[in-house]
Amino acid sequence: MTLMSSPVATPVEVRETDLDRVKYNADGLVAAIVQDVDTRAVLMMAWMNAETLRMSLQQGRTVFWSRSRNEVWRKGDTSGDRQFIRSAHVDCDGDTLLFLVEQEGAGACHTGSYTCFFRPFGSDEETTQRPGPT
Amino acid sequence: MTLMSSPVATPVEVRETDLDRVKYNADGLVAAIVQDVDTRAVLMMAWMNAETLRMSLQQGRTVFWSRSRNEVWRKGDTSGDRQFIRSAHVDCDGDTLLFLVEQEGAGACHTGSYTCFFRPFGSDEETTQRPGPT
Repeated sequence: MTLMSSPVATPVEVRETDLDRVKYNADGLVAAIVQDVDTRAVLMMAWMNAETLRMSLQQGRTVFWSRSRNEVWRKGDTSGDRQFIRSAHVDCDGDTLLFLVEQEGAGACHTGSYTCFFRPFGSDEETTQRPGPT
Repeated sequence: MTLMSSPVATPVEVRETDLDRVKYNADGLVAAIVQDVDTRAVLMMAWMNAETLRMSLQQGRTVFWSRSRNEVWRKGDTSGDRQFIRSAHVDCDGDTLLFLVEQEGAGACHTGSYTCFFRPFGSDEETTQRPGPT
C-alpha cells in the first residue's frame, strides 16, 4: 500500500487588529492574490468578503466569495485542487490581500492550467504547466 | 566617474487579439498585479484602463489609472521607483493582469517598503526590505 502525503492545513491566528486593517469595496469584497509558496508563481486572483477571509484564516485554506455564483467558494472542494495557506498578508492601504499557498493537484485554474495567468501579451507561447522549483 | 546602470525599457508587442481578451469592470478598469521578476515577490496591485494598459505595453513600463487622483499614473515618475516590464499576462477570464517587472529603487510601496504586502496576518513581523535573490 502506498500512501500519498496530503498537505496539512495550518490555521492563521485571527486577530481583530489584522482584520480591522482590511478595507472592503462597495460590494463588501476585497481582492485576494494567490501565490505558490514553492514556485513563487502567481496562480490566481479572486475575491473574499469578511466572512470568507475569516474562514480562510481559521481553516488554513483559501475560501473566496464567488461573484458569478453568489456563494461561498472553498477552493478545491469541487476540483480537488485545494490551497493550503502558508502565510497571509494585507497591503499598505488594506484593499488587497496576498496568500502564499501550497497548491494541491495540477494547479489553480479551472481550465486545467497550473496558473490562471498562462496567456502572455505579445506571444502565443502559453505557460500552462507547473514550473520546476526555482 | 562611476556609472549606475539603469534598467532598459523594452516594449511588449501590442496585438489587438491580446487586448480583446481583457474585460474591464463597470468603471472601465482591470486589476493589475505586479511581481518582481528577480525575487518573485508580489509587489503591489493597482488598476489600469484600456489606455494605460496600451501605454504600459508600448512604453515597457507600468502605467496605472489612479482611482484616488483620477489620473494617469506612470509608476516611478514622481518616486523614481520605476517598473520595467519583462513580461505581461492576462488571466483565464480576462479580468486580471500580471506584470513581471524589474523594480528600480528601494521598492514599489509609497510607504518606502519594498512590497506593499509587508504586513502578515497573525504576526507583527513586517517584511519591508527587498529579499536576497531566490
